[in-house]
Amino acid sequence: MVIKIVELIGVSKKSFDDAFQEGVKRAVKTLRNVTGVDVIGKNAAIVNGKIAEYKVNLKVAFVVE
Amino acid sequence: MVIKIVELIGVSKKSFDDAFQEGVKRAVKTLRNVTGVDVIGKNAAIVNGKIAEYKVNLKVAFVVE
Amino acid sequence: MVIKIVELIGVSKKSFDDAFQEGVKRAVKTLRNVTGVDVIGKNAAIVNGKIAEYKVNLKVAFVVE
Amino acid sequence: MVIKIVELIGVSKKSFDDAFQEGVKRAVKTLRNVTGVDVIGKNAAIVNGKIAEYKVNLKVAFVVE
Amino acid sequence: MVIKIVELIGVSKKSFDDAFQEGVKRAVKTLRNVTGVDVIGKNAAIVNGKIAEYKVNLKVAFVVE
Amino acid sequence: MVIKIVELIGVSKKSFDDAFQEGVKRAVKTLRNVTGVDVIGKNAAIVNGKIAEYKVNLKVAFVVE
Amino acid sequence: MVIKIVELIGVSKKSFDDAFQEGVKRAVKTLRNVTGVDVIGKNAAIVNGKIAEYKVNLKVAFVVE
Amino acid sequence: MVIKIVELIGVSKKSFDDAFQEGVKRAVKTLRNVTGVDVIGKNAAIVNGKIAEYKVNLKVAFVVE
Amino acid sequence: MVIKIVELIGVSKKSFDDAFQEGVKRAVKTLRNVTGVDVIGKNAAIVNGKIAEYKVNLKVAFVVE
Amino acid sequence: MVIKIVELIGVSKKSFDDAFQEGVKRAVKTLRNVTGVDVIGKNAAIVNGKIAEYKVNLKVAFVVE
Amino acid sequence: MVIKIVELIGVSKKSFDDAFQEGVKRAVKTLRNVTGVDVIGKNAAIVNGKIAEYKVNLKVAFVVE
Amino acid sequence: MVIKIVELIGVSKKSFDDAFQEGVKRAVKTLRNVTGVDVIGKNAAIVNGKIAEYKVNLKVAFVVE
Repeated sequence: MVIKIVELIGVSKKSFDDAFQEGVKRAVKTLRNVTGVDVIGKNAAIVNGKIAEYKVNLKVAFVVE
Repeated sequence: MVIKIVELIGVSKKSFDDAFQEGVKRAVKTLRNVTGVDVIGKNAAIVNGKIAEYKVNLKVAFVVE
Repeated sequence: MVIKIVELIGVSKKSFDDAFQEGVKRAVKTLRNVTGVDVIGKNAAIVNGKIAEYKVNLKVAFVVE
Repeated sequence: MVIKIVELIGVSKKSFDDAFQEGVKRAVKTLRNVTGVDVIGKNAAIVNGKIAEYKVNLKVAFVVE
Repeated sequence: MVIKIVELIGVSKKSFDDAFQEGVKRAVKTLRNVTGVDVIGKNAAIVNGKIAEYKVNLKVAFVVE
Repeated sequence: MVIKIVELIGVSKKSFDDAFQEGVKRAVKTLRNVTGVDVIGKNAAIVNGKIAEYKVNLKVAFVVE
Repeated sequence: MVIKIVELIGVSKKSFDDAFQEGVKRAVKTLRNVTGVDVIGKNAAIVNGKIAEYKVNLKVAFVVE
Repeated sequence: MVIKIVELIGVSKKSFDDAFQEGVKRAVKTLRNVTGVDVIGKNAAIVNGKIAEYKVNLKVAFVVE
Repeated sequence: MVIKIVELIGVSKKSFDDAFQEGVKRAVKTLRNVTGVDVIGKNAAIVNGKIAEYKVNLKVAFVVE
Repeated sequence: MVIKIVELIGVSKKSFDDAFQEGVKRAVKTLRNVTGVDVIGKNAAIVNGKIAEYKVNLKVAFVVE
Repeated sequence: MVIKIVELIGVSKKSFDDAFQEGVKRAVKTLRNVTGVDVIGKNAAIVNGKIAEYKVNLKVAFVVE
Repeated sequence: MVIKIVELIGVSKKSFDDAFQEGVKRAVKTLRNVTGVDVIGKNAAIVNGKIAEYKVNLKVAFVVE
């Protein structure tokens, strides 16, 4: 068996949790057999003193064989 | 005075926050004089395209002497 | 153009999210042209078996020139 | 010339060496012009006191242009 | 929105700058909506006392959704 | 659920593989519900030009609740 | 004697070298007694397939007492 | 043979050296067959402009079998 | 509440301990409400075979709000 | 007493184990009083879909005085 | 085959590129069979507001057997 | 100009400070033009509940050309 790891950044205007869910949703929609996600970073973009975007960096693991 | 550090992983079916609280609850129930917890990692297990488990890795510090 | 990076810790009695918002609020109030924040750590102080303080370490970037 | 790097985990029921060979076999079968692999981690899953799976994390480099 | 991160190595016989440009050129030709590149390493291969190849490792971010 | 992580070093006069197996054997004998081991380091002691001891550093995870 | 360290990002539309020089120029203009700069990171923003900004992260040391 | 590693923080009102000795003293009193200690961090708590506590983080190794 | 972190290097002709105390002295003199210091590095400059300067890198935390 | 540390890469056409033994053999032949080796990395070169070289990076410690 | 790794710092009054070339020139003049160099750091010394020295830290690999 | 970096471990039966001085003494006796030393680690060997050896890992820089 072989597992592949890809790196994604989930992005949301609402929260880090939502950004995480965005990333996972995309991963399970486009990749089969996703088995796990590692959160490897978090940051936010700020525009005019407001948080404009929450970003969560993820490593996604999925079985390829 | 000596402080000891142990590593735990809080696990929850609901959320990272809940997994963190699980880990802390266990730590304060089984260890006396807990003074702090460091979050050192986060990941989630995925089964059939759904998040099955949220995990939060913690370093727990408690006074031993 | 030059960007400066400063390190802050947002602190809250309520939650990590609130601690993060505290840090960001302070940053945008005292620094002009904040463009982003990186979450670089999280920990909590525990007193008598209860979480007394949530802390979120942040690197804040702002344009200085 | 451009080289691409992908991350794989070779998995085996037998040994770390076998898991490494699994990962390499998959890499050279699905990617052309593989030039090297870096071993970046090793772990094993344990079930009922027995090692159920050996895993070897690899970074695989291959020429893309 | 979801961003994907891939790792490339730009290679050049001329210089590190050229190797960086090679990597970026390839990235923007084969991936849509590239938003940024991080330089994560640099090395050179030496043959007969001469630099034969300059290599620059890059993490490339591009919007996928 | 809470998982605990402990760090062990398996030691063997024969090989790294044997040192790994030693560490795992000890872990599963003294801890219930071991779910995994991470290899986090390897070194060897040398005496009179011969390898006297192989050592493999492990992080062992086991369910505690 | 005490030395202080601050983190800056030099930004340029032209090149990494120019971004580095921008950062240093700003540092020596606004801080007295700068003794050194460490390059700790490099990245570039890309817009419409072109490099729009080169960024060089710097740690700047200057004597404060 | 198996070696176990535990993490302690020696604490002292006097000095880092004393904090280190505190940690070692505790380790050898409560654990048999301690073979070594690694210093992995140092910090101090400050109250009213005075150092109130010196802390030295240690990894302690001891033979368990 | 918000805490700020700054990086300093204490320098001394005498010893690492003295360099550490120099850094702390400066920190508490120029910053209010210092709560802690982390030692993050140590090095020494050598001139004509003698240690000319001991340097201790510190991260200093102080409450800003 | 002073110990010196040098970095070597053992190379073998056969296996990682053999590459490790190659590195150690060379170390003990050319350096006196070798006391230990740390494995700090592993990678393999691949040519035409076959592993052409196994490489194991080592830090070798030996007493010099 | 065994490869040895040594660490050098190339120094130049002109530029980082020149400092890199200085380091490589020295390496290939004094060591036979150099196969590669890794850039592992960059910094500059500043005197009177001017860059006095560019330094590039290198790991140099050369075949020893 | 080129600077070389070597790694040493100073060892002492008395203290970490003495171990550091041992390492530096050896470095300046056997290498010309030493310009600095970085402390990169500290550990102690323990025998029968007593500290038998203090060790300080150093990176020593010296001008070679």
